[in-house]
Amino acid sequence: MSTLSRREKSKCPISYSLDLFGDKWTLLVLRDVILHGKTRFAEFQSSDEKIASNILSDRLRRLGEQGFIAIEKDPSDARQKIYSVTKKGLSLTPVLLEIAAWGASHDGQTGELPHTVERSDSVCSSITNALR
Amino acid sequence: MSTLSRREKSKCPISYSLDLFGDKWTLLVLRDVILHGKTRFAEFQSSDEKIASNILSDRLRRLGEQGFIAIEKDPSDARQKIYSVTKKGLSLTPVLLEIAAWGASHDGQTGELPHTVERSDSVCSSITNALR
Repeated sequence: MSTLSRREKSKCPISYSLDLFGDKWTLLVLRDVILHGKTRFAEFQSSDEKIASNILSDRLRRLGEQGFIAIEKDPSDARQKIYSVTKKGLSLTPVLLEIAAWGASHDGQTGELPHTVERSDSVCSSITNALR
Repeated sequence: MSTLSRREKSKCPISYSLDLFGDKWTLLVLRDVILHGKTRFAEFQSSDEKIASNILSDRLRRLGEQGFIAIEKDPSDARQKIYSVTKKGLSLTPVLLEIAAWGASHDGQTGELPHTVERSDSVCSSITNALR
C-alpha cells in the first residue's frame, strides 16, 4: 500500500507499523537478521519455517527499500548479496521480543526459549554491526 | 497451518506466535477489540482501514476459535453477535503497545498518538469485561 493511500485511510500508529511489517514472513526474516545474525540468502532459506525463495526475495527487497536492512554485494562474489540489519531494523527488537515472550509463555513446546544463547550472541553481533 | 504441521517445522516461539496473529488484519481486529473496546461487526467494519467484510468475518471466527475473543449472540437480536476480548486476548496488549510505540516514534503523522485518551478508556473497559 502506498504511503499516500494509507494516509487517506488511517492515522493509527499500529496501522502505520503493520503496513511496514505486519506480515508473518517479514517478521520471520527480521527475526533471522536481528536475533540470529543471518546475512546470506541461503541462511534465511535454511530456517525451520522453509520460506519459499520468491517470498524471501520479495521480503528482503522490501525490507531493504524501507531501510530495515542494508543490502550489499559480496566483495568475494558479485553474484551474492550480504544482508545486515540497520539501526532502523534494530529498533524493532522490542516488538520481536514481545512476540517471542508471548509465544514462550503460551506454548509448552517453546517455553524453554531454546535459542536463548544463540540469540544473545547474535543480537550483540547485530548491534555491533549496525552501529559501525 | 495446523499445530502438527507447524511443530514439524519450527519450535521458535516467534514462529508460534506469528502462526496465530502474524497478519495485519488479525492484529487490527485485536487492536479494535482490545484498545478501542469494539464489540459489534459494524463497529469493526467502520475502522479507518476499511477491512473487507469477508476478511473481517474470517479473522473474527479464527480469533474466536483460538480463544482470543469470546463470541456471543446478542440477546436483543439473535442475528447479531457480540464480540469481547478474553484474558488470552488481553495478554497480547504488550505486543500491540510495542507496535504502536514503534509506529508513533517513526511516523510524524501518528507521533501524537491521537487515540491515547480513547484507548486508555477502552483498555480499562476491556480489562474489566475480560476479568468478569
